[in-house]
Amino acid sequence: MPASKRNAFYAQSGGVSAVINASAAGVIETARKHRNRIGKVYAGRHGIIGALTEDLIDTSKESARTIAGLKYTPGGAFGSARYKLKGLDKNRAEYERLIEVFRAHDIGYFFYNGGNDSMDTAHKVAQIGASLGYPVTCIGVPKTVDNDLPHTDCCPGFGSVAKYVAVSTREAALDVASMARTSTKVFVLEVMGRHAGWIAAAGGLAGSKPGDAPHIILFPEVPFAEQKFLERVQQCVNDYGYCVVVVSEGTRTPDGKFLAEAGTKDAFGHTQLGGVGPEIAGIVKRSLGYKYHWAVADYLQRSARHIASKVDVQQAYAVGKAAVEFALKGMDAVMPTIVRRSARPYKWSIGHVPLAQVANQEKMVPPEYITKDGFGITEACRGYLQPLIAGEDYPPYQGGLPAYVQIKGVPVPRKLNKPFVV
Amino acid sequence: MPASKRNAFYAQSGGVSAVINASAAGVIETARKHRNRIGKVYAGRHGIIGALTEDLIDTSKESARTIAGLKYTPGGAFGSARYKLKGLDKNRAEYERLIEVFRAHDIGYFFYNGGNDSMDTAHKVAQIGASLGYPVTCIGVPKTVDNDLPHTDCCPGFGSVAKYVAVSTREAALDVASMARTSTKVFVLEVMGRHAGWIAAAGGLAGSKPGDAPHIILFPEVPFAEQKFLERVQQCVNDYGYCVVVVSEGTRTPDGKFLAEAGTKDAFGHTQLGGVGPEIAGIVKRSLGYKYHWAVADYLQRSARHIASKVDVQQAYAVGKAAVEFALKGMDAVMPTIVRRSARPYKWSIGHVPLAQVANQEKMVPPEYITKDGFGITEACRGYLQPLIAGEDYPPYQGGLPAYVQIKGVPVPRKLNKPFVV
Repeated sequence: MPASKRNAFYAQSGGVSAVINASAAGVIETARKHRNRIGKVYAGRHGIIGALTEDLIDTSKESARTIAGLKYTPGGAFGSARYKLKGLDKNRAEYERLIEVFRAHDIGYFFYNGGNDSMDTAHKVAQIGASLGYPVTCIGVPKTVDNDLPHTDCCPGFGSVAKYVAVSTREAALDVASMARTSTKVFVLEVMGRHAGWIAAAGGLAGSKPGDAPHIILFPEVPFAEQKFLERVQQCVNDYGYCVVVVSEGTRTPDGKFLAEAGTKDAFGHTQLGGVGPEIAGIVKRSLGYKYHWAVADYLQRSARHIASKVDVQQAYAVGKAAVEFALKGMDAVMPTIVRRSARPYKWSIGHVPLAQVANQEKMVPPEYITKDGFGITEACRGYLQPLIAGEDYPPYQGGLPAYVQIKGVPVPRKLNKPFVV
Repeated sequence: MPASKRNAFYAQSGGVSAVINASAAGVIETARKHRNRIGKVYAGRHGIIGALTEDLIDTSKESARTIAGLKYTPGGAFGSARYKLKGLDKNRAEYERLIEVFRAHDIGYFFYNGGNDSMDTAHKVAQIGASLGYPVTCIGVPKTVDNDLPHTDCCPGFGSVAKYVAVSTREAALDVASMARTSTKVFVLEVMGRHAGWIAAAGGLAGSKPGDAPHIILFPEVPFAEQKFLERVQQCVNDYGYCVVVVSEGTRTPDGKFLAEAGTKDAFGHTQLGGVGPEIAGIVKRSLGYKYHWAVADYLQRSARHIASKVDVQQAYAVGKAAVEFALKGMDAVMPTIVRRSARPYKWSIGHVPLAQVANQEKMVPPEYITKDGFGITEACRGYLQPLIAGEDYPPYQGGLPAYVQIKGVPVPRKLNKPFVV
């Protein structure tokens, strides 16, 4: 016997990705196929803030074409937020407000699309809803370019960043190799990954044989050994004529300080704004004198839908779809996971894990994925990463540019007369 | 009556691009079609240095498949060089050495693939060959991502950088827009263009209606007015919630100094290594306090063959092909140009211009292409730029990565017993 028909709330959380909207499409399209069970899908304008402020977007006003277009549109179409709800004990009012809004709009399903923090929040909402006598089915939808969620083989969003970094490293290396005789000898690419080095590791896919770039990868998991690093740079320039370095923004000194915050100041005494990329380039320049270039990919890497991984797009959609299906099966406080069924050929399916097990945990690059010298990835790591960047899934183009969609974003009429300041 | 059969010399010069190898393919494939007139095509290993040091690559040892693969392989497959030959009066020995090597290898055609400086060199070689009684047909093959060569509608290499910058700006802007409520409000993308702002201008294509990113473009052609800039940033954040800035590396202060060299030092007293991107972000942060992010695309932008403009690839190939055809027609000391036959629909053909007219000139973004406030591009500029990024021309992929080709690079046996130190 089907449960009564209730509305759903979907929110994007934290840093966005090239495929988070594909998860949104998975949620919304799947919900639309079950109109007998799920009424409308409301999205939070700017994530959870939209719920707290009762600023909901009625996704039923978006055409099927727009929702399908989300599969190839990067960024967070409904707006995301870096807003962490505190613990239940510290800010019970926020959770109560969420439930109040949910109750006002007859929201019985909460799909929260984010990383570790968001899974924690979804878990807490599940708990408080029950304790307030307003049960809400809470399903986490995994998303993080950092690939640091536990209990899932990988995280939607990561494969596309990984592909961007691997492709960009391969391309830039061809450039450097051709110029090295008379010009740039050392090229440094700074990539994301504040705590885990998965994105930096993906740079390693650019090379396929010894001597190929990148010659050095710097991981947050490996304390930066300056002398050993410089020796390797010099050796690469001697052996290959040039050296390509992929450095994670989270690379730290042996005493645990971020290299990017190494305390350099500009002429006005302000802390230097440069990232770890220019910092590493500076270390090379000062010690070895090589001509260098550096690039900081920043948001370009996580929004590069034009070079998204097909596998990543499929998985992002699949976890959104599964989240709705799990909810309809009566599951609660779980997160769909990616399960690797086979490595070669790569086969995956969707599993699930209780939110309680995911919340606030981080999965680092394990030692067996990093070469003994600390500067490269092992074959095991390559075997893990490679399937995640497989396949291309180009967006449609118009006039030379990707024809990304934009939502109308029609607001749901407010029902509460209480403003809530976040 | 056909001229006697002589060999050709091809060299890549200066900064490489995503499509310079397409020009190489145009030269080599066209030469192969005229085996009765042109013997072998020798390429300089690392450009003109390969000629000076008699380090020539025999391209006849490369398969048809490899040469065809150059059409989709970025970087300089034969190696390029930042090596400017001095004036004839200052270093006649270098020019004489070039002619000596050409004579030893029966080289009757010189195809020089580069920018302003290279056109100047090709022109001088034409002159000295004649004066030394060893006439060499010298044809320039235009290449520069900076798009600053005169007498041609555009320069091969530019269209692909323009597309990369426009696509990346559009994508990153979607990211920023979704995060702006609680996080980054100002995003700065630094792009190439030390003297001319064409690449920065291309960022303007990312937006299609008022309010779209980029909200501010900073050109080398417009002196940086800090106060006016800050007011505009603030206005954008107020109006749209965020502000996206595309800044050319060549942006200068009103007194003509590069912003990137604004004199900031690190804690050790070294000149700061940051580019203009972090510098601009720092100005925003200090004055307005907004949370910011910045990216420096550096080599990624000019090597991004994965998102090359189809028009650019076609034009790069066409100028290589035309160079050979011009030589066979008996033309000398000319450069093929791109001629815009029609704007809508875009139609182009190949023309030519004497090298003497190209040498050492730079084409800046004209005032009528920059909006009155100095922060944007006009419709005229958009009309000029848009056709140049049209069409996609994806490389083949293998295992999730572009399957770029690598030459064998078989050396031509040396005939001279005189080493030459460059």
